[in-house]
Amino acid sequence: MSNKVLIYSRFPKAMLVRIGQRFELLDTAGKPPNEVLAADQLSEVAAMVTAGATQLGAAQMDLMPKLGAIVCYGTGYDGVDLAAAAQRRIAVAHSPGANASSVADIAVTLMLAVTRRLLPADDYVRSGGWSSAKPSPMMRPQAGMRGRRIGVYGMGEIGRKIAGRVAAFETEVGYFSRSRHDVPYQYLPSLAALAEWCSVLMIAVRAGVDTHHAVDAAILGKLGAGGYVVNISRGSVVDQKALVAALADNTIAGAGLDVFEQEPHAPDALTAFPHVVLTPHIGGHTLESHTAMQDCVIANLDAFFAGRPLAYPV
Amino acid sequence: MSNKVLIYSRFPKAMLVRIGQRFELLDTAGKPPNEVLAADQLSEVAAMVTAGATQLGAAQMDLMPKLGAIVCYGTGYDGVDLAAAAQRRIAVAHSPGANASSVADIAVTLMLAVTRRLLPADDYVRSGGWSSAKPSPMMRPQAGMRGRRIGVYGMGEIGRKIAGRVAAFETEVGYFSRSRHDVPYQYLPSLAALAEWCSVLMIAVRAGVDTHHAVDAAILGKLGAGGYVVNISRGSVVDQKALVAALADNTIAGAGLDVFEQEPHAPDALTAFPHVVLTPHIGGHTLESHTAMQDCVIANLDAFFAGRPLAYPV
Repeated sequence: MSNKVLIYSRFPKAMLVRIGQRFELLDTAGKPPNEVLAADQLSEVAAMVTAGATQLGAAQMDLMPKLGAIVCYGTGYDGVDLAAAAQRRIAVAHSPGANASSVADIAVTLMLAVTRRLLPADDYVRSGGWSSAKPSPMMRPQAGMRGRRIGVYGMGEIGRKIAGRVAAFETEVGYFSRSRHDVPYQYLPSLAALAEWCSVLMIAVRAGVDTHHAVDAAILGKLGAGGYVVNISRGSVVDQKALVAALADNTIAGAGLDVFEQEPHAPDALTAFPHVVLTPHIGGHTLESHTAMQDCVIANLDAFFAGRPLAYPV
Repeated sequence: MSNKVLIYSRFPKAMLVRIGQRFELLDTAGKPPNEVLAADQLSEVAAMVTAGATQLGAAQMDLMPKLGAIVCYGTGYDGVDLAAAAQRRIAVAHSPGANASSVADIAVTLMLAVTRRLLPADDYVRSGGWSSAKPSPMMRPQAGMRGRRIGVYGMGEIGRKIAGRVAAFETEVGYFSRSRHDVPYQYLPSLAALAEWCSVLMIAVRAGVDTHHAVDAAILGKLGAGGYVVNISRGSVVDQKALVAALADNTIAGAGLDVFEQEPHAPDALTAFPHVVLTPHIGGHTLESHTAMQDCVIANLDAFFAGRPLAYPV
């Protein structure tokens, strides 16, 4: 069996060092494989590593006739056409939970930063506004965490870790997911009920066709003028146009976003707002989490090349 | 008895509305009382409200011969010369614990923001660096929270609330304070030992002569190149010149500061750093916390004017 591994998404080189020590990599740097590699190179590809959110359909798979495994670096696999992979007997695997702590941390970071207006506060100090006692409407006191109702949408590993963290801030935690879980938080029967109930909606649901644009204008309206959205899942879960409109007309109070509909791109309408905090999809971007995700990728590839079932199948 | 209440520090008007509904206020807006008020007005002052950190010594007290109570808005009373007040039989009271949750929240906000480089990350998105894949050394992955050792200096009400919050991030929590407490965290026998042990030093100790510049060059050196300082107590606890030097030569990795040696002023040397997060002493600045602090101020003044002992004496 050929042992070439195609790197399908654009990854920083540092993330590929350990994987490259064990497997022969063909790095497309995020470009379409057939633009970068010749047909005979593609014909030797036995497995590939992708970022999970990157679109990967039948046409791309068919460029690599010997492809046997698609390994997602991270938890998500929403970009992978699972039906097309199954038809071609290509196994799909991911890195479940490897980045959950790191992603939950960034969710809480965004929640705290946007509700306490951290960026305007830092700017107020640096610009000299504080020392000159310049009046600043952005610096008016806001509600703190104690007694706040925090709604967690999705109760997978990341949702649980978010809930555990925010509960320590003397908040009330509620959640909605497809099924009830054995967790010490109030279950709300729908996303609409959760949005009505909470003042911060933390989006931790798995992306897919059933959650596409689940957070739309109606949900944002239920969240209301004192409400915040924090999204660390995928941009596709939120109707970004509706979110921009809700932020522009103060239907909601603010948003903390680590993910966007078209990455790596946050629209100008979003980047102009003072009441948002925007991060470049760095939820899983810590040293430990990269190590843990690489461990999963390596375990998946080791199993594949040894002819065993993948270590963390989707 | 005269019932005039002098407002000694500069407070936003909104913070004085409830107090002004119950007592007759003489607001100096932070200026020396004898520059703003005539001697006969000062002679009618029976009680005063101060911000606690504002310097208030014998000379100021002697401007108000009928002064019987000094009421601090907030937990701190480090600016009040307690010996001078005692000599003059002036009672001193504060607002213990009223802002503890809110201050603990901002401590964790600063910790998360500075360790995950939130401000450079937001700037990377807004400036277009992300969408153009501009290389950014500031965006390299950092250590996350899981498994981190967080050191809490001071185990009063705020220190406990900080410890409870950070423990939920899968960290190891240690502390140093004058005495051991019945808390589920490791006790370190000195501030130096705590700094040596932890990677984030959270300063929550009460300010005073015994803690003045407690966090100095030697302590920062023990914290080391991967270490962070977060200060939500008082600027006086940190040797600010030593901190600036440690940030400039990468003796430590960064700092999150809500308090400064000369407020409202953060020196240019600090505001120029990308690896700090600076907030304008907003730790206790939430709606609930202002309400709770005003409740304490009113309870203290009510008791004083009814001839009872102050509700929350220092």
